[in-house]
Amino acid sequence: MKNIIKSVKGTRDFYPAEKAVNSWLYKMIREVSESFGYQEYDGPFLESIDLYAAKSGEELVKEQSFVFPDKNDNLIALRPELTPSLVRMIAQKQRQLYYPLRWWSFGPFWRYESPQKGRGREFFQWNADLIGVASPEADAEMAALMAGLFQKIGLSSDQVKVFVNNRRLMEQELLALGIPADLQGTVFKVIDRRDKLDEKAWGAYALDRGLDQSQFDGVQKLLTADDLWEKSEELTRFFKAVDALGVSDYVTYSPRIIRGLDYYTGTVVEAQSISADVRRSIAGGGRYDNLLAAVGGDPLAGVGFAMGDMVLSVILEEFGLLPEDRDTSPARVMVTVFDQNSQLASYQLSAELRKAGLDVYSYPVADKLGKQFRHADRIGAKIALVLGPDEINNGEVAIKDLSSREQTSVNRNEVVKALLGMLENDSAA
Amino acid sequence: MKNIIKSVKGTRDFYPAEKAVNSWLYKMIREVSESFGYQEYDGPFLESIDLYAAKSGEELVKEQSFVFPDKNDNLIALRPELTPSLVRMIAQKQRQLYYPLRWWSFGPFWRYESPQKGRGREFFQWNADLIGVASPEADAEMAALMAGLFQKIGLSSDQVKVFVNNRRLMEQELLALGIPADLQGTVFKVIDRRDKLDEKAWGAYALDRGLDQSQFDGVQKLLTADDLWEKSEELTRFFKAVDALGVSDYVTYSPRIIRGLDYYTGTVVEAQSISADVRRSIAGGGRYDNLLAAVGGDPLAGVGFAMGDMVLSVILEEFGLLPEDRDTSPARVMVTVFDQNSQLASYQLSAELRKAGLDVYSYPVADKLGKQFRHADRIGAKIALVLGPDEINNGEVAIKDLSSREQTSVNRNEVVKALLGMLENDSAA
Repeated sequence: MKNIIKSVKGTRDFYPAEKAVNSWLYKMIREVSESFGYQEYDGPFLESIDLYAAKSGEELVKEQSFVFPDKNDNLIALRPELTPSLVRMIAQKQRQLYYPLRWWSFGPFWRYESPQKGRGREFFQWNADLIGVASPEADAEMAALMAGLFQKIGLSSDQVKVFVNNRRLMEQELLALGIPADLQGTVFKVIDRRDKLDEKAWGAYALDRGLDQSQFDGVQKLLTADDLWEKSEELTRFFKAVDALGVSDYVTYSPRIIRGLDYYTGTVVEAQSISADVRRSIAGGGRYDNLLAAVGGDPLAGVGFAMGDMVLSVILEEFGLLPEDRDTSPARVMVTVFDQNSQLASYQLSAELRKAGLDVYSYPVADKLGKQFRHADRIGAKIALVLGPDEINNGEVAIKDLSSREQTSVNRNEVVKALLGMLENDSAA
Repeated sequence: MKNIIKSVKGTRDFYPAEKAVNSWLYKMIREVSESFGYQEYDGPFLESIDLYAAKSGEELVKEQSFVFPDKNDNLIALRPELTPSLVRMIAQKQRQLYYPLRWWSFGPFWRYESPQKGRGREFFQWNADLIGVASPEADAEMAALMAGLFQKIGLSSDQVKVFVNNRRLMEQELLALGIPADLQGTVFKVIDRRDKLDEKAWGAYALDRGLDQSQFDGVQKLLTADDLWEKSEELTRFFKAVDALGVSDYVTYSPRIIRGLDYYTGTVVEAQSISADVRRSIAGGGRYDNLLAAVGGDPLAGVGFAMGDMVLSVILEEFGLLPEDRDTSPARVMVTVFDQNSQLASYQLSAELRKAGLDVYSYPVADKLGKQFRHADRIGAKIALVLGPDEINNGEVAIKDLSSREQTSVNRNEVVKALLGMLENDSAA
C-alpha cells in the first residue's frame, strides 16, 4: 500500500455513488420546499464568531465550532448552523423584505464532534424558516415540511416521527414545580441531556446543576406527561393545523423534547427515526421570537428547523430507500473510436448527438473495440456506436445494443431517431 | 442604524435573487457535464495542508489558503482548489475505478485574496476532469465542455474565448533560447505574471528572477508567436479535435497562457472574457500527467479545468444574460386566510392542492384580505384563493386573478382543474 495523504477526520469523500444520494436529496428537498412556496437562499460558510456568541448556546459555540483567527486576528467560524446567518441577513434588509417570508437552503456545516455512524464534522443541512408571523399555524407548517420530505423519500410514519413540545408550556409547568425562571434554562439543559446520559448519571447531573430532589422528581414526572399539550392553547391550535395539513400521523407530542439551542421561545420540534434499534435525531427546530432583535434588527417573530443529511442517509440505507446506482451514469450512449484516423469522425458524431439533446460519452482515444464495449457496459451505457472506415464509406453508423449484444447498421442521417427509439424501449422495460 | 454584526470580508450573502443565479448556473453546468457523460462527485471542503504542499504551487498554498490548526495541531486548509482532492480520491480507489473516468463537481472554495468585483474569498467552482487517457483529443474535450457551457448560458465566441497553449512546446522553445530546464519553472511564473504587472515592473521581475536580457528578449518574442502551435503535434491534433467537436470558434492558440499551478505537464487552457474593457480570466486548467503518482497513487494521466462563478456572474450581468427575477418565486398560487375560524379550511385546501402537484403558499395567519392580496402580488403569485364562510357553505372557492383583479367562484371539486387552466394560460402569455 502506497502512502496516500489522508483525508481530514470527520469529512467525507463524495464518490459518484455518494454524491448521487446527496444531489437526489437536494432535489427532493427543493421540490418539497417549493411546494410550500419557500425561496432558496444561503448564507456565507464563514461567519464572525460574534454572530453565534451568546445566542446559539455555549456548547455549540465554544466546544463544537471550528474557529480560527484570520490574518487580522478576527475570529472566524465555519458555520455550525444557519439560523444566526439568516437573521443577520434579514436584519440587514429588514425594511426591504416582504413578510411572511419563507426561505429554505441546503448547504454544508461544520461541527467539532466525535465522528460516528450518522455523525461527521462536515455535513449538509436542509434549513427552512418562516419569518414575520407568530401563529401556531406557522409552527405547524414546519412539521408539514418535514413530513412532506419524509413522504417524498418514502419514510413512513411508522419509521419516523416529528415530536413536538412548547417551551412556554414547560416554563409554566416548571414554575408550578417551584423552579424559578432563572433556573429554568438549566433545567432545559438537563432535559436535553436525558438521552445522552444513562439514568444514574443523568440524575447526578441534574442535582449537580442545582435542582433539589423534589424538583428533580417533579421534572421526571413531567417528562412522562404525554397529554401535557392539552394545557397549551398554542399546541392545541398547532395540532389542529397539523391535522388540516394532512400530516397528523407523522406528528406527536412529547414533553421530553426541548432542543439544545438557547434562542427558542415557544414550540420546539425534533424529528427522530423510531423503528430502528437506535433512536436517532434527524432534525430539530423551533420558534425564536427574540432572535432578530438580538442580532441588531427590529423585533420579528420566526420559526424554523434544520435537518442533517447524515442520519437521514443512514436511515434511508437501512430501509433500502436510496436511489439506484445506475443514476450515477448520466449517459446511455457511447461513441467508440475505431482507429486514430476515424477518431475525428467519431467526435463529429458525438457533437451532433449532443446537439440533438442526447447525453453521450466519446471514447477519447483509439483502442481495441472489445475494451471499449466493456468500458461502455461498466459505466452504464446501453448502446455503443461504431464508426469505422466501412461505415464512413457507406454513410452509416453501426449501433450495438450492449444488453442483447445485437449490432445493426443505420443510415448516418437516421441515427438520432434510431437511438431515441432504442432508449425509449429501454426505459420502458 | 442599529448595530448588526458584519459578515466576513470576501464572503457573500445569497439572498433569493443571488441564490437563484447560483442554482441556475449549477443546473446549466450539470446539463453540460452530463451531456458529455461526466459523473458528479465532490471532495471534502476541509483537507490536510499536506495535500497541497509542493503540488499546487507556493503562492496558492502559503499565501492564498485559509489554514488553521485543529485541536490536535494538525494543519487544516479550507480547500483552495479541487484537483488535489480529486487525485487523492482516485489514488485511494485506483484499482476499483474504470478509466477513462469523467467526473465533474460544483462547490465552494476559499482563497485569501483581496476582494474586488468578480473576486471573493469564498466562491464556487465548476470542476471537470478526464482521467486515464493522455490523448490531445481528451484535452480537446475540456475546451468543448467550457464552450458548451458558454453556448448554453448565451455567451458568444465574440464575448469569451478559450485560449490554449502547451507546456511541452514552451519547454522546447525555451530550451532553444538557451534557458535550461531548471530555470523553466521560473520562466513560467514570469509569463504567468505578465498580465498582473505593468510592462516595466514585469521586465524588472523577469531579470530579478534570473533571466539575462537576451533570454528575456527571446521570451518576449515567443509571447507574440501566435502560430507557434503549428510546431506541436499535440496542439495540431488538439485543434483538429476541437474542430470536430464543433467549437473551434471559441478556441484559440495563445503563447501567453501558462497557468500558475506547478503540476501541469502538457496542454494548458484559460477562458477569458474578451469583449469587456477588462479582460477577465473565467476558467483555467490543463494536463497533469504526474499528479496521481505525486499523491501516492500509480502513475495515471489526467486533464481538467476549473471555472469560478464570480467572474462568470459579473460577465453575465454585464451582457444582461442573467435569469429573470421571477424565478425566485416558486409558487404561483396563494391560499388566503379569511378569518381564524376558516384558517383550517384554508390549510386543508392548500394541502389538497399540493397533493395535486401544485406549488402553493398558505398565508399562515388571519389578516386583512387586501393585505394578503398585496403580499401575494409582491412575492410573484398570480392567483389568490379565498375560502370564507360563504364559500365554505356553498362548497366553493373564490379564485382571484391578481393581474386582471377579476374574481370568480368555482366548485370546490373543480378548483385544481381551474387553476391548472389559468396557470397554463399565464405561462403561455
